[in-house]
Amino acid sequence: MLVKIRRSPYLLPKPVAIVGALVDGKPNFLTIADISTTGYKIPRFVVSSGKPHYTNKGIIENKAFSVNIPSENMVAAVDYCGMKSGYNEDKSTVFEVFYGKELNSAPMITEAPITHACRLVKTLDFGDTHYLFIGEILETFVNDEILTNRIPDIKKVLPFSFHSDNHYWSVGNNFAQAYNIGKKYKKN
Amino acid sequence: MLVKIRRSPYLLPKPVAIVGALVDGKPNFLTIADISTTGYKIPRFVVSSGKPHYTNKGIIENKAFSVNIPSENMVAAVDYCGMKSGYNEDKSTVFEVFYGKELNSAPMITEAPITHACRLVKTLDFGDTHYLFIGEILETFVNDEILTNRIPDIKKVLPFSFHSDNHYWSVGNNFAQAYNIGKKYKKN
Repeated sequence: MLVKIRRSPYLLPKPVAIVGALVDGKPNFLTIADISTTGYKIPRFVVSSGKPHYTNKGIIENKAFSVNIPSENMVAAVDYCGMKSGYNEDKSTVFEVFYGKELNSAPMITEAPITHACRLVKTLDFGDTHYLFIGEILETFVNDEILTNRIPDIKKVLPFSFHSDNHYWSVGNNFAQAYNIGKKYKKN
Repeated sequence: MLVKIRRSPYLLPKPVAIVGALVDGKPNFLTIADISTTGYKIPRFVVSSGKPHYTNKGIIENKAFSVNIPSENMVAAVDYCGMKSGYNEDKSTVFEVFYGKELNSAPMITEAPITHACRLVKTLDFGDTHYLFIGEILETFVNDEILTNRIPDIKKVLPFSFHSDNHYWSVGNNFAQAYNIGKKYKKN
């Protein structure tokens, strides 16, 4: 039976990503699940970040951030970055970082299977609890071992999602082909 | 080895959702994977939609849309909605719809385990290929069979993701507890 519940941002599965920024000259890392992309020719990330986050300062000052896709084996460090604030804890050595050619203030995580350097192009503030940072992707790096036919192989990347049951969930099985299974849809 | 590839909006896993809108008085449905949420007290959806999509017309005219989380068993209809444009095909009967109390132009899908009615509060256009629609969630409805301890049970919802390998992927296993596994992280 359909029931109305409190209005809730239920979207499943939500991808887990680590946003990196330089704050006062040191890398800091923020774990988030409220993130998406927009566009292909000019690809951008859309990142929602609660206003109290330490990382925001670096994103706004440098107009730069990184988006790192973690693998399951990084989950303890990923969760640690979500539990501890940079205001209280120095997270600069949690990951080894490198920088691309375009931005010297977007610390990318060396061990992440996929990482991106983004230039902040817009900040939205609706006057309540979160910023929405939109960053143009300037560079994408991958670990070449995770590629199959030149694109990231989801079973090699082993990305994961976060759900409001407060657990991290792995990716399961490939169960249908896009732009194909729809041919089996029969109109009533 | 880290290699630089063409800049790409690689985010994994990307959730599949169906956006509904009324276009010229009829429900239309758009399948997307570029979607996220922002905020909790005032929850919002952020939806990226390519400019040619027929659904955009309804979203912009009515300032309203729905966001529906599909279940695996809906995959053929979901994919169909991603393959066919409302300009060429009448998709108004693909799903049974209902309306909430707040918006009479956000057609919500009755069979979706979770659905939301959203009021468009901002449209961003970077001048290239996509709109970014931001909608405040006014109402959330769920099928009460998918709740466990009052929140959606991911193994009952059976949501799925889309990857650029052009396949739909199921959700796998709960492999770690958030705000807990991070305690095992040891600093170098």
